[in-house]
Amino acid sequence: MAEGSDAIQALIAQIARLPGLGPRSARRVVLALIRRRTGQMAQLAALMADVADRSCACIRCGNISESELCPICADPARATGELCVVEDVADLWALERARVFKGRYHVLGGTLSALDEIGPDELGIPRLLARVEAESLSEVILALNATIEGQTTAHYIAEALVPTGVAVTGLAQGVPIGGELDYLDDGTIGAALRARRAL
Amino acid sequence: MAEGSDAIQALIAQIARLPGLGPRSARRVVLALIRRRTGQMAQLAALMADVADRSCACIRCGNISESELCPICADPARATGELCVVEDVADLWALERARVFKGRYHVLGGTLSALDEIGPDELGIPRLLARVEAESLSEVILALNATIEGQTTAHYIAEALVPTGVAVTGLAQGVPIGGELDYLDDGTIGAALRARRAL
Ligand SMILES: [Zn+2]
Ligand SMILES: [Zn+2]
Repeated sequence: MAEGSDAIQALIAQIARLPGLGPRSARRVVLALIRRRTGQMAQLAALMADVADRSCACIRCGNISESELCPICADPARATGELCVVEDVADLWALERARVFKGRYHVLGGTLSALDEIGPDELGIPRLLARVEAESLSEVILALNATIEGQTTAHYIAEALVPTGVAVTGLAQGVPIGGELDYLDDGTIGAALRARRAL
Repeated sequence: MAEGSDAIQALIAQIARLPGLGPRSARRVVLALIRRRTGQMAQLAALMADVADRSCACIRCGNISESELCPICADPARATGELCVVEDVADLWALERARVFKGRYHVLGGTLSALDEIGPDELGIPRLLARVEAESLSEVILALNATIEGQTTAHYIAEALVPTGVAVTGLAQGVPIGGELDYLDDGTIGAALRARRAL
């Protein structure tokens, strides 16, 4: 009973599993929540249940959505013919914050990884190829992280896209080696996107 | 719509307000939760609502509790005559984890602070004095933080307890276990040297 009731201990354990948190920071978070239990904590619980309940993956691009098609896929103004392929929804958010890309996205949900047995099928690359064939795209921008896994995946996709004849580009050098999009400032992301080059 | 729906943005804003978190870490937490929305997220929301609903302050000691008296106050084995005064429930938890104290607690909920207009009444010090008078205590241990505010508050309480005749003690100050002198502040080194003991 060192940390209160079973429910409190379960709550600390759950929060400690979130990215960037551990047992000590989870305890601090839970105590802060209990202190604000009638205000923030109840509100946060309701909001969380609501988001969990309403969120789904966009059937076209994999973005988080509250409807079959996400707002970006549903917006005709974003049918620019440019498709930006990202690893993760966090990267899509980072690009949207930079406000430089006006086209649509494709969220892979990861990278190729022999270790984790994630091959082209698991990443949905056949589905991406079908999408490139079906929509009349002028350019596919591979905005993957500048990590070994990201760049390996980008090269694989670039090769696979050759038969479609679509222009394939990647973000410019300017993304630091080993850097992840979600950690970059908006200016760097904007500059790298504007200076994208043919692969 | 950079970060998804209004509900997602509200959730990120709420989580960013928690101690140790900010906008970037809140985004990562929310994305991780949405990825696990049918499992962890729904569970966490339910747990949080449950804890918010059931938690209250123990009417005797101020510990977090699910009933009028917390398990420590309700346990007759903990009526040892020793009362440990702490600033916060986090400190009570830290002492319980150390498994060295067998008595009961009194949670102040803060320290005296002229700046924040927290005087003896706001900290419930009259209530603490009444408790010391009413329970037949042999010792009050002032386990407040070794900060200026903590030590000022400890001195105030020690003075106020003089008329009751109870023994008043404080935690020993010195080098923490595993601590390296080179990394300690001068105050700690001075205190440890002054309180040196025969080996
Ligand atoms: Zn979409
Ligand atoms: Zn109690």
